[in-house]
Amino acid sequence: MELGMIGLGRMGANMAQRLHRGGIRVTGFDPGQAARERMASAGVATAASLEALVQAMPAPRAVWLMVPAAAVEPLLEQLLPLLAPGDLVVDGGNSWYRDSLRHAQRCHQAQVAFIDCGTSGGVWGLKEGYCLMLGGEPGAMARLKPALQVLAPAADRGWAHVGPVGAGHFCKMVHNGIEYGMMQAYAEGFALMQKKQEFALDLAQVAEVWRHGSVVRSWLLDLATDALRDNPRLEGIAPYVQDSGEGRWTVSEAIELDVSAPVITLSLLERLRSREANSFADRMLAQMRSGFGGHAVKAANDGE
Amino acid sequence: MELGMIGLGRMGANMAQRLHRGGIRVTGFDPGQAARERMASAGVATAASLEALVQAMPAPRAVWLMVPAAAVEPLLEQLLPLLAPGDLVVDGGNSWYRDSLRHAQRCHQAQVAFIDCGTSGGVWGLKEGYCLMLGGEPGAMARLKPALQVLAPAADRGWAHVGPVGAGHFCKMVHNGIEYGMMQAYAEGFALMQKKQEFALDLAQVAEVWRHGSVVRSWLLDLATDALRDNPRLEGIAPYVQDSGEGRWTVSEAIELDVSAPVITLSLLERLRSREANSFADRMLAQMRSGFGGHAVKAANDGE
Amino acid sequence: MELGMIGLGRMGANMAQRLHRGGIRVTGFDPGQAARERMASAGVATAASLEALVQAMPAPRAVWLMVPAAAVEPLLEQLLPLLAPGDLVVDGGNSWYRDSLRHAQRCHQAQVAFIDCGTSGGVWGLKEGYCLMLGGEPGAMARLKPALQVLAPAADRGWAHVGPVGAGHFCKMVHNGIEYGMMQAYAEGFALMQKKQEFALDLAQVAEVWRHGSVVRSWLLDLATDALRDNPRLEGIAPYVQDSGEGRWTVSEAIELDVSAPVITLSLLERLRSREANSFADRMLAQMRSGFGGHAVKAANDGE
Amino acid sequence: MELGMIGLGRMGANMAQRLHRGGIRVTGFDPGQAARERMASAGVATAASLEALVQAMPAPRAVWLMVPAAAVEPLLEQLLPLLAPGDLVVDGGNSWYRDSLRHAQRCHQAQVAFIDCGTSGGVWGLKEGYCLMLGGEPGAMARLKPALQVLAPAADRGWAHVGPVGAGHFCKMVHNGIEYGMMQAYAEGFALMQKKQEFALDLAQVAEVWRHGSVVRSWLLDLATDALRDNPRLEGIAPYVQDSGEGRWTVSEAIELDVSAPVITLSLLERLRSREANSFADRMLAQMRSGFGGHAVKAANDGE
Repeated sequence: MELGMIGLGRMGANMAQRLHRGGIRVTGFDPGQAARERMASAGVATAASLEALVQAMPAPRAVWLMVPAAAVEPLLEQLLPLLAPGDLVVDGGNSWYRDSLRHAQRCHQAQVAFIDCGTSGGVWGLKEGYCLMLGGEPGAMARLKPALQVLAPAADRGWAHVGPVGAGHFCKMVHNGIEYGMMQAYAEGFALMQKKQEFALDLAQVAEVWRHGSVVRSWLLDLATDALRDNPRLEGIAPYVQDSGEGRWTVSEAIELDVSAPVITLSLLERLRSREANSFADRMLAQMRSGFGGHAVKAANDGE
Repeated sequence: MELGMIGLGRMGANMAQRLHRGGIRVTGFDPGQAARERMASAGVATAASLEALVQAMPAPRAVWLMVPAAAVEPLLEQLLPLLAPGDLVVDGGNSWYRDSLRHAQRCHQAQVAFIDCGTSGGVWGLKEGYCLMLGGEPGAMARLKPALQVLAPAADRGWAHVGPVGAGHFCKMVHNGIEYGMMQAYAEGFALMQKKQEFALDLAQVAEVWRHGSVVRSWLLDLATDALRDNPRLEGIAPYVQDSGEGRWTVSEAIELDVSAPVITLSLLERLRSREANSFADRMLAQMRSGFGGHAVKAANDGE
Repeated sequence: MELGMIGLGRMGANMAQRLHRGGIRVTGFDPGQAARERMASAGVATAASLEALVQAMPAPRAVWLMVPAAAVEPLLEQLLPLLAPGDLVVDGGNSWYRDSLRHAQRCHQAQVAFIDCGTSGGVWGLKEGYCLMLGGEPGAMARLKPALQVLAPAADRGWAHVGPVGAGHFCKMVHNGIEYGMMQAYAEGFALMQKKQEFALDLAQVAEVWRHGSVVRSWLLDLATDALRDNPRLEGIAPYVQDSGEGRWTVSEAIELDVSAPVITLSLLERLRSREANSFADRMLAQMRSGFGGHAVKAANDGE
Repeated sequence: MELGMIGLGRMGANMAQRLHRGGIRVTGFDPGQAARERMASAGVATAASLEALVQAMPAPRAVWLMVPAAAVEPLLEQLLPLLAPGDLVVDGGNSWYRDSLRHAQRCHQAQVAFIDCGTSGGVWGLKEGYCLMLGGEPGAMARLKPALQVLAPAADRGWAHVGPVGAGHFCKMVHNGIEYGMMQAYAEGFALMQKKQEFALDLAQVAEVWRHGSVVRSWLLDLATDALRDNPRLEGIAPYVQDSGEGRWTVSEAIELDVSAPVITLSLLERLRSREANSFADRMLAQMRSGFGGHAVKAANDGE
């Protein structure tokens, strides 16, 4: 099978390599020359432009997009005029499933098939394989199967056709919502153990023992164990947590569907909170306490 | 009526004055000489020791304690040997209702009546009157009535015998839990308006208009309006919010009674959060994101 | 001053009456004949159609819309062709502020001024006056002033020009978010007192005493006191809580602005939760507990 | 090595069997005859009384308690007089770590060593091995090592001496708090997917694909996959979720240590909520909405 990979960042480059090693003929494209050169030096063919990529592939083509969510729509506008009826576009990035529904419609107008693929696994996917949740038509899925079997951890597992277009990114969105909740649960638990100074717990040791036989064993815990072993006090790291969209979409979707999802929601809010400097709400609380109770307010820039 | 007031801090001194102005004969005591002198200069009689306080009052005596929760028990141990059967002790502070149950038992052994009185109103009580929730025996309550009628905003309202011993402090505990939730709701709302820069809202103006006819009008809003008028950006105030026990007790009681109280609970947690410097949980989240996704971690002490 | 009131439901009819009593010449319109007849029998002039309403008023006209959020846009499409340049439209309902920005734009094209007015006060506004938060141009606001002075609790307070178009509905949205949080805080507190059976608390009595001098006194508490007095155990009421949009918008806006608003958010989620029958999440938790721990699962339809 | 196992319920019986199969000489005791007989039929020696158990073992003895938390203290009072100085007691159940500190003190007075062992793994431990977190003295730990090596999934992992007495149960408490958070995160995510009817997702399929290569893969997910495969709609299960103490202790400990742990806390509250029938808070909210807005209240016992 032959596949074009557009977007050779962290995820796209790794996936192109895994496909290449697995016997799929991959041609990669990225607007950045350095990204293309890294790819080429890893032995994967590259094209210097979208046009060149498309021309390098025999029809019907399969092109896999691995670009930031905001880049998908403009990229499609550039790409579709270059493609031919019968070609296939896969969006393997973290797009909002509602955008994917629109993108599928746009492709449909050009008689190009569209698959939305939620991709999990992060930087470890190159070695361990990716988890792939796919939405789209069965025919398109069948064409993509050889690539999926190589990308997934094993030929018969780690990839699934979960429903019509949109379903793939929907499942990935929920997956990330759950991920936020699990991460927050671990983070709170370890923070509590770290604060319990009288037991002088070795957090890496506790994490390690939990990896074997406990109810909370998981891949995230495996990673946490490594991190705590390397840096037991997490020194040099700012308490500043980014989020990348899927959590927000999950929260928003849950509310729209009248599903109460407090833990996923609070996990997102904690990330917002981590990035709030000089919280206005907290200053207002301090001021209100002072207003009715005469409680002293801590002055700004006071040391503790 | 005659009353001894022990504890002449912010609350006790104000209450003694309000009683004094209302025609109750008050003798105040505080271990601090400065507090006693302030009281005396406000025209209220003081005693230089617990013994002197007790001796200055005719039996049966009524003594009102207005001291920090942790000070009640040792104070009772000092006071009870000085009192006589038939005397009455009122704990008007923010004691945990379970401690009050024990204190009542201790007083009962000495044939001294005990009333637990939840007192709300803060520094404004001197002028506007206090809200008083009382637990205890009807007989003791009847003896205290003249003082309650003076302390409350009006003779026939703002004080109530809500139940047996413990019920007064229980109601005050729940009152404060609700207070936490209301304050947090306002704080979040104003923080949201403050962040919406495109509307350049004048928060004091919005607060003021809400005071008249809106569903969210309240006394806390009255105070918030004043605060925002004086300091619209809440400058000079650290985002650091103390808590004083009642919120914790409310959360703990709710869990023990299998009552889900998420808003009161989260209000407490937000206060804890406001005091967390360099949150371990957040650093762990940042590190975990980096671990699986290769996301960059913000370095500690980085400016933003 | 002369005003057209479109929408004679609970809110519109009351506002028309308050305006009428205050000396404003009001003509009302509602598609429902019964609503028009109720209005007429209250002494307020009505028109039988939008066309008739517009013709009954001298230019430049001021028309106040008091209709459900979803009805504003189609209504504007009907109304604007009937209006003339220089006329004024006020949307006094609970529209999303982003819709109002669009509606203002649409009116602007027709040279019609637009004001978005957040209106609080509910069914009590007729008697006590409404709290009005207004967004729009100063000129339009000046023309509306006589009506605002009648609608508000007093001529000089309870209404405010808070900012440009959109700011009025934005403030009302946040107002309702705060309202959700306050209501939930009270509800949790009273639920906790209700569950504490050993104190046999009279909830109406506690609510009443809090109304006088306490930190949690508020208009919502006044209403809660009445409700608890009439129906101390809240019998006959299903534990089923509706929401009407503003809470969702507040939550969504807060997340978009990176403001952590956990209490307002949880208040909304609790309402969703109150309407979930046979929660899938809870069944899944029960099943998972059974899966690893062998804990018995409660069978569906089991009595307790 | 020789070990007495007291408490032959689900956990104790399985552990006795695993020890027996691993070459440890186990004598079991349970007050219930049926439990003893099941044990005997599995080939493990049993004793008919505590006295018999103690007499059957050579000094210095090691006795492992696997009983409900509330039963530990009375059991110790019975057991200690039968033991001799130099014997060792292990509490492998879900005791509160603060109780364990007291129990250790009590054993110390009798010159009996005490180890608190947090045990995770549930009904799967028999086959897969248990995760064991231990607190106590190094000497006692060394004596117990042969048993730990058999109970754990492997001789060199899955068990750890994490700190002084109390540390074992403390870590297990936090483990369970994290477990609550993870379970709630999964439950919310699957509930959201279940509600998204337009995609007609096969939840077992999604769970299965996530098991391979995804960021949320875990042992709990493995179990959830099995459960969803067997019963995709979770029919016949009541939405009623028990909790068993550790979650409460974790929440309480976090608050006491000023650690904000919102996700673990909310996970507990959701369980309380699942068991609330006819929530008073929700009825109060519905009533309050009606009070100010005239919104209709849903009557109790109304169908939907």
